[in-house]
Amino acid sequence: MTDAAEALVLRSDRDGVATLVLHRPRARNALSLALLEALRDAFARLAADDGIRAVVLAAEGPAFCAGHDLKEMTAFRAEPDKGAARFAHLFELCSAVMMAIPALPQPVIAAVEGIATAAGCQLVASCDLAVAGEEARFATPGVQIGLFCSTPMVALSRNLSRKAAMQMLLTAELTDAAEAKALGLVNEVVAAGTALAAAQELAAGIARRNAYTVRVGKRAFYEQLEMPLAEAYAHAGRVMTENMLARSAEEGIDAFLNKRAG
Amino acid sequence: MTDAAEALVLRSDRDGVATLVLHRPRARNALSLALLEALRDAFARLAADDGIRAVVLAAEGPAFCAGHDLKEMTAFRAEPDKGAARFAHLFELCSAVMMAIPALPQPVIAAVEGIATAAGCQLVASCDLAVAGEEARFATPGVQIGLFCSTPMVALSRNLSRKAAMQMLLTAELTDAAEAKALGLVNEVVAAGTALAAAQELAAGIARRNAYTVRVGKRAFYEQLEMPLAEAYAHAGRVMTENMLARSAEEGIDAFLNKRAG
Amino acid sequence: MTDAAEALVLRSDRDGVATLVLHRPRARNALSLALLEALRDAFARLAADDGIRAVVLAAEGPAFCAGHDLKEMTAFRAEPDKGAARFAHLFELCSAVMMAIPALPQPVIAAVEGIATAAGCQLVASCDLAVAGEEARFATPGVQIGLFCSTPMVALSRNLSRKAAMQMLLTAELTDAAEAKALGLVNEVVAAGTALAAAQELAAGIARRNAYTVRVGKRAFYEQLEMPLAEAYAHAGRVMTENMLARSAEEGIDAFLNKRAG
Repeated sequence: MTDAAEALVLRSDRDGVATLVLHRPRARNALSLALLEALRDAFARLAADDGIRAVVLAAEGPAFCAGHDLKEMTAFRAEPDKGAARFAHLFELCSAVMMAIPALPQPVIAAVEGIATAAGCQLVASCDLAVAGEEARFATPGVQIGLFCSTPMVALSRNLSRKAAMQMLLTAELTDAAEAKALGLVNEVVAAGTALAAAQELAAGIARRNAYTVRVGKRAFYEQLEMPLAEAYAHAGRVMTENMLARSAEEGIDAFLNKRAG
Repeated sequence: MTDAAEALVLRSDRDGVATLVLHRPRARNALSLALLEALRDAFARLAADDGIRAVVLAAEGPAFCAGHDLKEMTAFRAEPDKGAARFAHLFELCSAVMMAIPALPQPVIAAVEGIATAAGCQLVASCDLAVAGEEARFATPGVQIGLFCSTPMVALSRNLSRKAAMQMLLTAELTDAAEAKALGLVNEVVAAGTALAAAQELAAGIARRNAYTVRVGKRAFYEQLEMPLAEAYAHAGRVMTENMLARSAEEGIDAFLNKRAG
Repeated sequence: MTDAAEALVLRSDRDGVATLVLHRPRARNALSLALLEALRDAFARLAADDGIRAVVLAAEGPAFCAGHDLKEMTAFRAEPDKGAARFAHLFELCSAVMMAIPALPQPVIAAVEGIATAAGCQLVASCDLAVAGEEARFATPGVQIGLFCSTPMVALSRNLSRKAAMQMLLTAELTDAAEAKALGLVNEVVAAGTALAAAQELAAGIARRNAYTVRVGKRAFYEQLEMPLAEAYAHAGRVMTENMLARSAEEGIDAFLNKRAG
């Protein structure tokens, strides 16, 4: 199978919502170097696109994403250093893609059908929000093949309680959509086959908000999460003050007060 | 409407429990500067009051608290700096009030009926414990009016999983009491109209404990939360040793051992 | 009652799984100095035992563990310093035992029947995974006897949401097994009396995995948890690269690819 002739990430825009679709369905959307580069480039273009206010990340075919491309990785072993440099590059690139999601100005909503495993599960955990079809399944099964899901755990353990994350990592077992919602990995479970539509509707709601406001809020969210309480408040207070001085807040608050008075 | 003639925070004490009541019902208890100052002062008096062992925070009227007072804030825009200095002062004051709750020696229990939105939701998140009537509703809807709930998110994201917090912040949707309990924002859901009584009963139970012990424990809780594991244990171990040497522990443990032997 | 004549921690090994059993049943497995030393030594031996790939921590008798040994602690008060040095030593030893669990190369699974209270609850919270019989009960009741559960809170507050942890600490109330699972304190609830068998089955599954892979993953899990996101990814990426270069990953991935191709 060759990917050369086709785009690995499809993008379609509608009313301020960009939908990215992982498009290596025959490889269960495994994150080859080329697919990771395509995702990195797609996120970079979105970051600079003021017309886009929310992003949906979906996938073509029965699997959302099966993680890394093990066949490609195995081929790296033929290098003189047994692949060390290429593996290091691959994991750096993959982590950069994962970190690009919280760093993106627009909220990113995963739309998950089928399995999301290993780095595919990490992709869901890295999104700001996630919607899953009721037959979606999640796992971090690297332990089964001797390669612990160590980079996926970074995102997973920032979504789930630690014992729940440990259980997924140590047992490799599949977590169904309802359990994934209970654990904090997804926000909403919908009928099978409707995750994309539900994620797009959620995105459309966000896209109707003021883009500056959403951007300011999303950035502040991740910044303050890693600060001690007093520092977090000092930072968020400065963000609120700036936000109040922006035209969008002035207009929004005026409209709200006039409507209430009306 | 003027607040000048009446107290904005009512306090009544009973058996070591102080109940504070937000008292701007016609403004849905919006956190005006004056109300925030009244809360700050009420907390400062409680901190110095050895007779009080637990605090309930409730509200008068159908709403618990609707957040900041947007009408007052809008009036600040008439200043030469368009309100910048007053906004900064307001958010600093508000953050100081929110941080005064974990810093208070006594546990603080929110009793929520009706809506708790924006900084009102933050107030609930900032309390040590929270009881909600089953018709209580929670939201961080700032995004709707162009003013992202950036300071509320500091408390919210320290109560909820990150995707759940993001959903409330980005969608502005109302979270009902049962869901708020599932997410970690409240401890207990009771019949509508009985949150105050339930919170007072919980507070009365805490007030019957040794005040020194509760104070030591509450302070250590928030201190150790922000430390790495080994440092947290070193700190908590010192706290336990001091606690063991206090008369209250000696008496409590003796009574327990004698009862068990008896 | 004397413990001198019998081992305080029993160990039995089977197919790479070591089962440790707290063995002071008449004292409800209270963590005396001697029992803590026995646990510390047992963990130290396990850390050096390459034949063991997973550990189950269970208890003899109707109680899992009732926390510290209050009778022994009270006797320390006869010292010239009123016990200060011995209390400090006890809490340091106890914290060292608790931290030895995440530091152990092998995953540790608690098997809980009956009550797990105070430092006994902390022991469950400190394990990587936990299985509870449906009649298991959890509490941090120190506040009742004037000795707040300050060291237990370190582990508890890293498992539960903060309001849930605060509720257990301030109210001393018993949390049943189902609620403990909902809160994140245990992974699985099974029929009363079957927690040990269930934990051993879970452990056997982990023991069938490659030991190097599990060790690398468990260590990385706790290391990255305390890092900011970018640092966590840089660390996990290095771990993944090393893991890929190990023979176990090469063989595991080859077997997986051949099976898929076959």
